[in-house]
Amino acid sequence: MAQEFSEQHRVVYYDTEVTGEMGIGKLVDMMMLASEDHSDSVGVTTQKVLGLGLGWVITQHLLEVKRLPKTNEVVTVSTKAASYNPYFCYRDFWVEAADGEMLAKMHTVFVLMNQAKRKITRILPELVAPFESEYTKKIERNPLPMAPKQPTASNDYGVRFMDIDSNHHVNNVHYFDWMLDVLGADFLTSHRLKKMNIQYKQEVRYGQVATSEVEIADLTSYHQIKVGQDLSCVAQCEWELR
Amino acid sequence: MAQEFSEQHRVVYYDTEVTGEMGIGKLVDMMMLASEDHSDSVGVTTQKVLGLGLGWVITQHLLEVKRLPKTNEVVTVSTKAASYNPYFCYRDFWVEAADGEMLAKMHTVFVLMNQAKRKITRILPELVAPFESEYTKKIERNPLPMAPKQPTASNDYGVRFMDIDSNHHVNNVHYFDWMLDVLGADFLTSHRLKKMNIQYKQEVRYGQVATSEVEIADLTSYHQIKVGQDLSCVAQCEWELR
Repeated sequence: MAQEFSEQHRVVYYDTEVTGEMGIGKLVDMMMLASEDHSDSVGVTTQKVLGLGLGWVITQHLLEVKRLPKTNEVVTVSTKAASYNPYFCYRDFWVEAADGEMLAKMHTVFVLMNQAKRKITRILPELVAPFESEYTKKIERNPLPMAPKQPTASNDYGVRFMDIDSNHHVNNVHYFDWMLDVLGADFLTSHRLKKMNIQYKQEVRYGQVATSEVEIADLTSYHQIKVGQDLSCVAQCEWELR
Repeated sequence: MAQEFSEQHRVVYYDTEVTGEMGIGKLVDMMMLASEDHSDSVGVTTQKVLGLGLGWVITQHLLEVKRLPKTNEVVTVSTKAASYNPYFCYRDFWVEAADGEMLAKMHTVFVLMNQAKRKITRILPELVAPFESEYTKKIERNPLPMAPKQPTASNDYGVRFMDIDSNHHVNNVHYFDWMLDVLGADFLTSHRLKKMNIQYKQEVRYGQVATSEVEIADLTSYHQIKVGQDLSCVAQCEWELR
C-alpha cells in the first residue's frame, strides 16, 4: 500500500475569487505543494532529482470538484504516489473539509525527463521506492481531453516574469488561469466546475504568448493553449449551473 | 501604544520567483493578510465595515526590503494600526526571519470610503479604537513617487477574472506584477529591490486593460499604470545590483 501524506492548508483571501471560493489554479497549486512536501519528507527532494540530471514532468491531471473551499476554511490536503510502471508514475490527491467532507480529488500522471536530452526516461526505482508506490506493468488508459473544434472565444496571455516559479517553470496556476479566464465573468459566476481533464503537451516559456482558445457546448467546455502553431495544452471541463 | 499583531507564514514554492525569493506582490499580500487577521481578531471585520456602508481603501505603501524570504522559510509578519487623524489611518508592517533578522518593513496609508457616494469619509473612531491606535491631528507628509517622464518600456495587461479576489477588488499582487514585469527578466534577475513607494489613484476593474509604463534611470525606476488616459497608480523603486 502506498504511503499517505497529509497536511493542512488555510485558504486565505488571496487564494479566492469573486465567488468567495478558491480558484482552480490555486487548488491545484495547493495539491502540488503537498506532493513536494511528501517528496521532501521521504528525502526525494527536487535537488536530489535534479542532481541525477532528471526532472518530474506532469503530463495529465484529472480533477473532480465537489465543493471549492471558501476564504478562511482550513482544509486537509492528502496525497499518495499510488503506482508506477516503467515510464509513468500515478499520484492521487484528495482535499477534505474540517468535518471530513470530501471537497476535491485529483489523479495526476508524471513522467521523468532527462534534462540534458530533453527526453522521457525510465522511472528510477530509487525515486519511487521511498513512497512505497506499487509497481504495475499496466499502463493506464485515462480518457483524453478533446480540443475545441471551432473555438468560440480566444485570448492572448503574455508569459510574465512572475509566472516562472523557483522550479524554473511556468507555475501550474497560470495554465488554469489562461484556460478559465477566456470563459468570461458571466460564465464563471453562473457555473461551477465539476470536472477538469487537462493534458500538457509542451511547456510555455517566459516571453512567449499563450493563446487560449475555448469552445462551449452546453455544460462542457473544450480548451487549448497554443504558442503560435504549437499546441501546449488541451483541457476539457464539465460544469454545472450555480 | 498601538496594539501589535503577529502571525507566522511559511513561504512556499508558488510564492517565489525564478530567483528563489518571494515575489514583491506576494510579500505585500502576506502583509495585507496580517492586517485582515488583525482586524478580524478585534472584531472590526470586513463585513462590519461593509455593513456600515464603508470600505477601507489603500492610498499608499512605502515598502523597504532588506532581504526577500526564500522558499520554505517561515517568517513572522507583524502589524499595528499606528495612528490616525480625521481622514487617514496609518498602519505599519514588519517581517522577520526565524532568528529575528528584519527582512522588510512597510508603512501604509488607508482612507475610509463611503461605498454609496464613492467618496472619502471621516474615520469612525469605533473602527480604530479596538486597535488602540493613537489619534493625532497631524497629517503625514510622506514622499510621493514620481511618475515616468519619458517611459522607456510599456506593456498592456488585461484584468482577468482571477485578478479579482473575494473582496471584489483587483488583488494587490497584480499591480505589483504589472509594474515589475515590464522591467524584464534581465533587469529583475540582476537587480534587487530595496525600496518601493506606490501611490494608488484609481481602481482598475475587471475587463479593463492596464498599461504599465516605466522609465529606468540608474538604480531608480519610475512607474505608472494607466487605463486609457486615466492614471491608476504611480510608483518609484530603488534598486541595488545583485
